[in-house]
Amino acid sequence: MADGLPDPPCGLLTADAARSLVDSVDAFLFDCDGVIWKGDRLIEGVRETMELLRKMGKKIVFVTNNSRKSRRQYSKKFRSLGLEVTEEEIFTSSFAAAMFMKLNNFPPEKKVYVVGEDGILEELKLAGFECFGGPEDGKKNIILEADFHFEHDKSVGAVVVGLDQHFNYYKMQYARTCISENPGCLFIATNRDPTGHMTSAQEWPGAGTMVAAVSCSVQKEPIVVGKPSSFLMDFLLKSFNLETSRMCMVGDRLDTDILFGQSTGCKTLLVLSGCTTLPELQDASNSIHPDVYTNSVYDLVGLLQK
Amino acid sequence: MADGLPDPPCGLLTADAARSLVDSVDAFLFDCDGVIWKGDRLIEGVRETMELLRKMGKKIVFVTNNSRKSRRQYSKKFRSLGLEVTEEEIFTSSFAAAMFMKLNNFPPEKKVYVVGEDGILEELKLAGFECFGGPEDGKKNIILEADFHFEHDKSVGAVVVGLDQHFNYYKMQYARTCISENPGCLFIATNRDPTGHMTSAQEWPGAGTMVAAVSCSVQKEPIVVGKPSSFLMDFLLKSFNLETSRMCMVGDRLDTDILFGQSTGCKTLLVLSGCTTLPELQDASNSIHPDVYTNSVYDLVGLLQK
Repeated sequence: MADGLPDPPCGLLTADAARSLVDSVDAFLFDCDGVIWKGDRLIEGVRETMELLRKMGKKIVFVTNNSRKSRRQYSKKFRSLGLEVTEEEIFTSSFAAAMFMKLNNFPPEKKVYVVGEDGILEELKLAGFECFGGPEDGKKNIILEADFHFEHDKSVGAVVVGLDQHFNYYKMQYARTCISENPGCLFIATNRDPTGHMTSAQEWPGAGTMVAAVSCSVQKEPIVVGKPSSFLMDFLLKSFNLETSRMCMVGDRLDTDILFGQSTGCKTLLVLSGCTTLPELQDASNSIHPDVYTNSVYDLVGLLQK
Repeated sequence: MADGLPDPPCGLLTADAARSLVDSVDAFLFDCDGVIWKGDRLIEGVRETMELLRKMGKKIVFVTNNSRKSRRQYSKKFRSLGLEVTEEEIFTSSFAAAMFMKLNNFPPEKKVYVVGEDGILEELKLAGFECFGGPEDGKKNIILEADFHFEHDKSVGAVVVGLDQHFNYYKMQYARTCISENPGCLFIATNRDPTGHMTSAQEWPGAGTMVAAVSCSVQKEPIVVGKPSSFLMDFLLKSFNLETSRMCMVGDRLDTDILFGQSTGCKTLLVLSGCTTLPELQDASNSIHPDVYTNSVYDLVGLLQK
């Protein structure tokens, strides 16, 4: 625990705690869905909060498990919402998947099969890998009949699974046959979030549901590259000159954001503007406690200006 | 262990063991996929084996986790393959789902949402329940956009999940919202098989993959009505005047068929004509050992006539 922050399990963010938190860190890592926006709607006060933190000299990084977009596409989304954010400040699980393969010397002659959306395909291509699947295969139907034999590409050396609104039985069988039948084929999951705020109105099944289905069919656990896996943090630390003890992870999910922050040594701030409710945080069955919690990131502005 | 059968872990079916097995039981329970047929192709010698067992006065029952068809549809399939089997001799997981709801007094004014195929819808309707979803919802697409709000029927009191070749994100969200938001809504799984011989040529993702996806999104475990759950056996024993110690379960899967037979007190015979290979059976990591094993049911004919 940092000096001046309340004792565990965790406390409401006060003016004192906010000042102490800001003084004790050089960088803020923000989750996006449920923290910065819900669907395509910016959460109130985000712009003011970012401006204040930047004015105070804090580095800001966005770390999202949402693999639907590439870093380039996210940067565009930030701009459309009136936030100036560069690609270099954005770490997505789609980018993490591509970087994991690059750092692990994935053979360039092998192909990648994607259960997921455009973001994964774009990041893999930018990293120089040949990939297929994704939205294209969302149109393919399976008719289970008699002697039908499903063919798959024997040169696939990795299957990357992320959130996929066009998930279907064709992709499930493609992923299964590659992972089960191609020797050494990697099974990589962008993340295992069970749900997410894919639209502003409500929660939807997350990438964890696609990963659970594929994992069940091959009876194997995937390599996870997004939160709470430490891969993303290791890569982030390599990219910036930062120490995790001087960083604060801000997120709305206990089992990804807060766990990720804690397991990598960051301070942690839970916001209640997304998936987690106060009763869930305080429930006896919950074992993940952030350093502090508050309603939304905008509270930082009010508390720091008191 | 029955007298005369080999000691655990398990032994190859010999002529002596086959005679002893047949003498010690009054009924044979056969799994279908991988035991009787693969896809639409009858496994060699099945007809002769059934004829011999019937001639010996043995009761024959078919117990399948495949929920794609109703009992009526299965009876038709048996006839098309030249086997005279009545509906009363067939226990499917689709039928088990309907019987579970009937025996547990599911309120008739509530509806049932189905992630699965025709077999489940037909059995639920025959049992008097109002249901929807299934193949019809396989055509529905989700476009995750901005403020889109997904509506679901608040009168759904149960979601039944089985094998579904038209599985999609729409059904995942429908199942999730009913189970999470409708108070007391039941989450019923026909079975959790990770794979199955849906065609004769190869394996495919099983109902367990759809169940895993839905289970992940709601963070709840389902009530399982098919093998290896004992519900199906309890219902079967109520329907026939039989004792489980005088029954033999014949199947190709260790984690469903053999586990189901053992946990309900049956003798067990594993056939290697389906999902399980001899190295898998004999692998040190396998903890499920049938009483005896053999290549296919046809071996019974050869061994009993020796």
